[in-house]
Amino acid sequence: MKIKIINGPNLNLLGDREPTIYGTTDFRTYLRYLNEKYSLMKIEYSQSNFEGEIIDFLHKGRDKFDGFVLNAGAYSHYSIAIRDAIAGIKTPVVEVHISNIYNREEFRQKSVISAVCSGVITGFGLKSYELAINSFLQN
Amino acid sequence: MKIKIINGPNLNLLGDREPTIYGTTDFRTYLRYLNEKYSLMKIEYSQSNFEGEIIDFLHKGRDKFDGFVLNAGAYSHYSIAIRDAIAGIKTPVVEVHISNIYNREEFRQKSVISAVCSGVITGFGLKSYELAINSFLQN
Amino acid sequence: MKIKIINGPNLNLLGDREPTIYGTTDFRTYLRYLNEKYSLMKIEYSQSNFEGEIIDFLHKGRDKFDGFVLNAGAYSHYSIAIRDAIAGIKTPVVEVHISNIYNREEFRQKSVISAVCSGVITGFGLKSYELAINSFLQN
Amino acid sequence: MKIKIINGPNLNLLGDREPTIYGTTDFRTYLRYLNEKYSLMKIEYSQSNFEGEIIDFLHKGRDKFDGFVLNAGAYSHYSIAIRDAIAGIKTPVVEVHISNIYNREEFRQKSVISAVCSGVITGFGLKSYELAINSFLQN
Amino acid sequence: MKIKIINGPNLNLLGDREPTIYGTTDFRTYLRYLNEKYSLMKIEYSQSNFEGEIIDFLHKGRDKFDGFVLNAGAYSHYSIAIRDAIAGIKTPVVEVHISNIYNREEFRQKSVISAVCSGVITGFGLKSYELAINSFLQN
Amino acid sequence: MKIKIINGPNLNLLGDREPTIYGTTDFRTYLRYLNEKYSLMKIEYSQSNFEGEIIDFLHKGRDKFDGFVLNAGAYSHYSIAIRDAIAGIKTPVVEVHISNIYNREEFRQKSVISAVCSGVITGFGLKSYELAINSFLQN
Amino acid sequence: MKIKIINGPNLNLLGDREPTIYGTTDFRTYLRYLNEKYSLMKIEYSQSNFEGEIIDFLHKGRDKFDGFVLNAGAYSHYSIAIRDAIAGIKTPVVEVHISNIYNREEFRQKSVISAVCSGVITGFGLKSYELAINSFLQN
Amino acid sequence: MKIKIINGPNLNLLGDREPTIYGTTDFRTYLRYLNEKYSLMKIEYSQSNFEGEIIDFLHKGRDKFDGFVLNAGAYSHYSIAIRDAIAGIKTPVVEVHISNIYNREEFRQKSVISAVCSGVITGFGLKSYELAINSFLQN
Amino acid sequence: MKIKIINGPNLNLLGDREPTIYGTTDFRTYLRYLNEKYSLMKIEYSQSNFEGEIIDFLHKGRDKFDGFVLNAGAYSHYSIAIRDAIAGIKTPVVEVHISNIYNREEFRQKSVISAVCSGVITGFGLKSYELAINSFLQN
Amino acid sequence: MKIKIINGPNLNLLGDREPTIYGTTDFRTYLRYLNEKYSLMKIEYSQSNFEGEIIDFLHKGRDKFDGFVLNAGAYSHYSIAIRDAIAGIKTPVVEVHISNIYNREEFRQKSVISAVCSGVITGFGLKSYELAINSFLQN
Amino acid sequence: MKIKIINGPNLNLLGDREPTIYGTTDFRTYLRYLNEKYSLMKIEYSQSNFEGEIIDFLHKGRDKFDGFVLNAGAYSHYSIAIRDAIAGIKTPVVEVHISNIYNREEFRQKSVISAVCSGVITGFGLKSYELAINSFLQN
Amino acid sequence: MKIKIINGPNLNLLGDREPTIYGTTDFRTYLRYLNEKYSLMKIEYSQSNFEGEIIDFLHKGRDKFDGFVLNAGAYSHYSIAIRDAIAGIKTPVVEVHISNIYNREEFRQKSVISAVCSGVITGFGLKSYELAINSFLQN
Repeated sequence: MKIKIINGPNLNLLGDREPTIYGTTDFRTYLRYLNEKYSLMKIEYSQSNFEGEIIDFLHKGRDKFDGFVLNAGAYSHYSIAIRDAIAGIKTPVVEVHISNIYNREEFRQKSVISAVCSGVITGFGLKSYELAINSFLQN
Repeated sequence: MKIKIINGPNLNLLGDREPTIYGTTDFRTYLRYLNEKYSLMKIEYSQSNFEGEIIDFLHKGRDKFDGFVLNAGAYSHYSIAIRDAIAGIKTPVVEVHISNIYNREEFRQKSVISAVCSGVITGFGLKSYELAINSFLQN
Repeated sequence: MKIKIINGPNLNLLGDREPTIYGTTDFRTYLRYLNEKYSLMKIEYSQSNFEGEIIDFLHKGRDKFDGFVLNAGAYSHYSIAIRDAIAGIKTPVVEVHISNIYNREEFRQKSVISAVCSGVITGFGLKSYELAINSFLQN
Repeated sequence: MKIKIINGPNLNLLGDREPTIYGTTDFRTYLRYLNEKYSLMKIEYSQSNFEGEIIDFLHKGRDKFDGFVLNAGAYSHYSIAIRDAIAGIKTPVVEVHISNIYNREEFRQKSVISAVCSGVITGFGLKSYELAINSFLQN
Repeated sequence: MKIKIINGPNLNLLGDREPTIYGTTDFRTYLRYLNEKYSLMKIEYSQSNFEGEIIDFLHKGRDKFDGFVLNAGAYSHYSIAIRDAIAGIKTPVVEVHISNIYNREEFRQKSVISAVCSGVITGFGLKSYELAINSFLQN
Repeated sequence: MKIKIINGPNLNLLGDREPTIYGTTDFRTYLRYLNEKYSLMKIEYSQSNFEGEIIDFLHKGRDKFDGFVLNAGAYSHYSIAIRDAIAGIKTPVVEVHISNIYNREEFRQKSVISAVCSGVITGFGLKSYELAINSFLQN
Repeated sequence: MKIKIINGPNLNLLGDREPTIYGTTDFRTYLRYLNEKYSLMKIEYSQSNFEGEIIDFLHKGRDKFDGFVLNAGAYSHYSIAIRDAIAGIKTPVVEVHISNIYNREEFRQKSVISAVCSGVITGFGLKSYELAINSFLQN
Repeated sequence: MKIKIINGPNLNLLGDREPTIYGTTDFRTYLRYLNEKYSLMKIEYSQSNFEGEIIDFLHKGRDKFDGFVLNAGAYSHYSIAIRDAIAGIKTPVVEVHISNIYNREEFRQKSVISAVCSGVITGFGLKSYELAINSFLQN
Repeated sequence: MKIKIINGPNLNLLGDREPTIYGTTDFRTYLRYLNEKYSLMKIEYSQSNFEGEIIDFLHKGRDKFDGFVLNAGAYSHYSIAIRDAIAGIKTPVVEVHISNIYNREEFRQKSVISAVCSGVITGFGLKSYELAINSFLQN
Repeated sequence: MKIKIINGPNLNLLGDREPTIYGTTDFRTYLRYLNEKYSLMKIEYSQSNFEGEIIDFLHKGRDKFDGFVLNAGAYSHYSIAIRDAIAGIKTPVVEVHISNIYNREEFRQKSVISAVCSGVITGFGLKSYELAINSFLQN
Repeated sequence: MKIKIINGPNLNLLGDREPTIYGTTDFRTYLRYLNEKYSLMKIEYSQSNFEGEIIDFLHKGRDKFDGFVLNAGAYSHYSIAIRDAIAGIKTPVVEVHISNIYNREEFRQKSVISAVCSGVITGFGLKSYELAINSFLQN
Repeated sequence: MKIKIINGPNLNLLGDREPTIYGTTDFRTYLRYLNEKYSLMKIEYSQSNFEGEIIDFLHKGRDKFDGFVLNAGAYSHYSIAIRDAIAGIKTPVVEVHISNIYNREEFRQKSVISAVCSGVITGFGLKSYELAINSFLQN
């Protein structure tokens, strides 16, 4: 099983940006942990601050991966273009958020991509990604 | 580790009610599966159609359990009383939904309890409960 | 044909509460009138001030009755849980209101259960119940 | 007792227009059925696609009929002029709808005339008209 | 100077309809009073319950009259078509209302035609019409 | 008959401020015209930029005048205090505006005092005041 | 191929009304141009200021024409009755507007009939009609 | 004089739940203080997490008590059913809140029961109850 | 203990203005009653129709009084300036209203100053002031 | 005459993505058809998933083309940046949509770029592009 | 060059009121600094808690000063009267705020006077005033 | 001191695009003026039409510059991603706008990045940038 994790804008600063909200671990370190623990799966990773590039990741990976784990960051709240990209491919996409977006600013409590994702996991810190990976596993 | 799963209104009809949305498995069957797979944990279960009884479950279990997995069903969308019950106890509560509430009716896309839960897992069918159980496990 | 009439919160005070709006007849008296006039039907009756109990009435009666006549009172305006109970059973439910809710307070003009009922009858005083009973009769 | 049924815009196409919503019976056929079943009453009928003509029907019939059964069709949702006509006469008007307007488009869930009608009957197919007729009968 | 007074829907019932709001004088009687008092002017009058006919009155009179006094009744609140008719002609139109629409229902407090009228006079009973006539007079 | 005209904020600049909207005549000049034309009446005048002073004018004049003509200027759009002052006295108040406030900015189209005034006259330039004076005259 | 063009309220004034918005050509002249250029088609034309008559045009032409080109004018913004007429017939209807309604007043930017038309063409002046005719042609 | 204090959901946790907001005194202790200080009055007390039971308290006590002091907790913000129970009895009900609900979350700033209570006292900590008791005393 | 009562706009008319809402006692009479009953306290009083003067009362009294009892009248609903004055001083301010503002007009149900007051007392007639005085007393 | 067609996000998947909405033809094939049929014109084409690149296309082509045909896809609904790019150049831009956006999700019914385009063509499938090309032709 | 700085309500407490938001320097001290640094300019200063007096400052200074620097405090958020005063004079007015109003309460993020000011400077502490002074200087 | 000026979408057209709003000077010319006048500072400059690239500029410059001057153009109104980038770095960012965005279209009056900037300067033409530079200088 091949999974691609996609991180959106500002998540390249993870571990550095607003650590009280997002924690102090950078994502590359966390990715190694995931690859070791889930060694039977193939977990790839990309990050971009460009809305268009996230769309490209989804288009180009749609026949190569069995699923996407997507943290679209701030784009979650307004990018109908990413929503359309998800709706336009058949590969399932699980939406994740590190923080609990529902107890933050009003504008951050609405994700325009949730409706077209197969599931949503929010608020477990970096563990949100691992739970998303688990969601693809057979029981 | 002791976890209590609480199901809210109409979830007693699971497996029978609107199967295209909620599936055909009844929850007792699924609970046996969980208890077998996670045999080192102690997983208890209650269901109620009464808002007040769900509050009682949270109050009474707050010193007995290490965490709650709560599917408050329709009450998720308006029960500020349940929200206050969650905020008023220290035991972490993970909110789960079987269906993806974000691609259903407008009024079902807002959960008033999400802000006070430690995390939210939505849209994975009955597997949402298992992912919630997983979220309590140490890595 | 078996029909169950369910009355929601405060309707136990009928004949006593706000008589300029709800009239001076108590419901038990009216029920006798209905049972005499429609003696070939079997008309049962329950009332509760508890949202959860109204849900229970619908669940438990879903295989015993051919139809429900439901005046959910104030719960009509916000109980998505009762809405889900109606949507989750196959027995038809006719929504009734004694007063014309559309010329009262703004918040009373919206019923969240209408959309899942088979029909709605509003504003005919106690006669709303009789019209609802009639709606189940063959022409 | 003399009753006038008034049908608003597009109801001349009944039986032909969107049959999955409005059924396949045309109204003239249904009117014959009503006149036979309620032979002691005098039931007249008019239809118009013109808002102004519906107002004229109400004005001109206000001393000739004991009641109106009005399906104002789409005008129900915005014709304050028809609302004023109803409020301006003393003859009672019962509002009917064939389909359950509360589970259709948002704009169709609000009727601006309900507040000035004596009662509202919605969602019973053509039987809505018969229930409205019944509402005028003495017990 | 030639002025045309146009009355909209339900104003044919004036003196008869809701007298606590609209008074007990019928408009023809009032018109005679106006014609006597302002005998140097030529004051014509038309009434219609049809939105389209009110538009026709404005179109056809646009070269014959020096001004219109328009009480569009309920159409004031939603008829963008009448608004466009007023905007499309060069003859000035004064909007009048008999009752003070600003202390009535919310929906009656907004007139969509006010913005394109040369002035608005509201709440003086039938005297609103006379003030409108006065507004056309030279000082 | 004694009438008091009250002008609100910025109307002291009349004839000077935004002349394309408010004209080039200053109010003192216009007041002389009114006093000459309506020499049988006693027309007094005050202006203030202070909300509290306008309230004082209404309180103090409530037994001295037969009516007020009030152009509350910008306070019309938010001064509930002036609204309460009008509602709290028995002397009738006619609201006037020089420009047609309904074709200006959105916030200027709502007057919070209209509902408690006996009538409203808008958009006739300085003539709005004269029409208001007329409205107090017997026919 | 037979096409019917229907123009709504105030479009009889075309060429005369607000020429900076709607141009200076009257529609009859333009119709001749269309009939000459598309001589193999049969293009009929009607105009009405009455909402009810526009509905009648659609009903009566539904079996006689292969398509309608409809400029419903101001009715586009609120006539659910015309919307229902379009939805109730099977003949395709193309909505056109002469001006670009999206850069005009807020209320003019929403058309309630667009959702049930087969396509919408806006802002090309009278050429909007010709493009609509073109849309019915085979490639 | 007999007064009944009714506490709503989660107030059984008082002294334990969110002490920075609600203080550290439990209600039973406070009740003893009230009964001692106001020994000439009879002050009874009930608490429930069930909306229906609060309605029952009001119904059953309506002839036994001279007044109610009601802290409906979270139900204050959405329970139209409790509102109807208050409106349906003649016994006066004083609404109290421990914290100042107007400087908390938006949804907590609106109480749907205030309009039918005889008075509202908010933000004085437990002293809110004592002030409510005082409000029933003759001067 | 020194307390200052501040009354806002139109409250100088108390006893005279809208007596069905505000009662027939003038405030000076009531103040004597308060000073006699609470003779150990020093209760001063000011009233103003000027928003700016109310701010001045708060500023100037902030070191002289132990608390303010403020009925800001209509300014309660929009004076952010008074709100800022309250927030900017350390002396506690108790907001009072004579009538129950929550069952009056929509715009009167929101007080912009409640959030920065230490408590709010509404609907007890003049007794609201006495309860506010009581709130400053030690138990 | 030189025209540039610009396609926005996800339109590179045309023919593959959601074919029930967008059809099964890919755009390159359709472009060949256009170039053959309109061989006297020069029709260029670009597609991008990047908002910034679409802006660049407009900037760079503003002196090279006589017009743009722009299907901005999802960006139509929120990209004020693209709107500004269109408003900032003098070359006319025609907005096209393949599907009828007005009968899809609420958020898809508003295009923020329509107001600055010279015209809008919606709902004709790929033929929308051809009609846009036609709109640039002289009659 | 002559500039007048006008401070609105509560700014007389500067240095004393909410120092974490507004700092600890009082304005008179800061004014001396400005007058020394910009000794070639003439900088006058007034403060008032009265909306009407701020309007008077603008009216009276309109021919005496080359520009105004206005911190209208809370009045910025609702005083249309001050807005009109600014719009009614030709002297440029620069709006300043000490704190960043855009990260404070929702109601504080909208200034009704910004639209008629020549520029707005927000969030630089007392330095906002100095930047405003600079904005009047020639390069 | 090192400052970086970042310009967002369409600002590459400055001097060419909508000159009545944005002026006729191109930014490179203006930058030379700034570098000469503030020769002790180091002022760098970048422009991009890509949201992602503006985020990159902020990330990459966060340790190289003492402050940013950011005109995010249209992205100011919806780019939560840029907002997050600003919030995620410690370097202060001053938001500038050339035109007064508060007297333009409704959607342009809200900047989603203001709340996380250290200050905002709007409406001074190109001088807005210079004032922003000044804001970084010590007094």
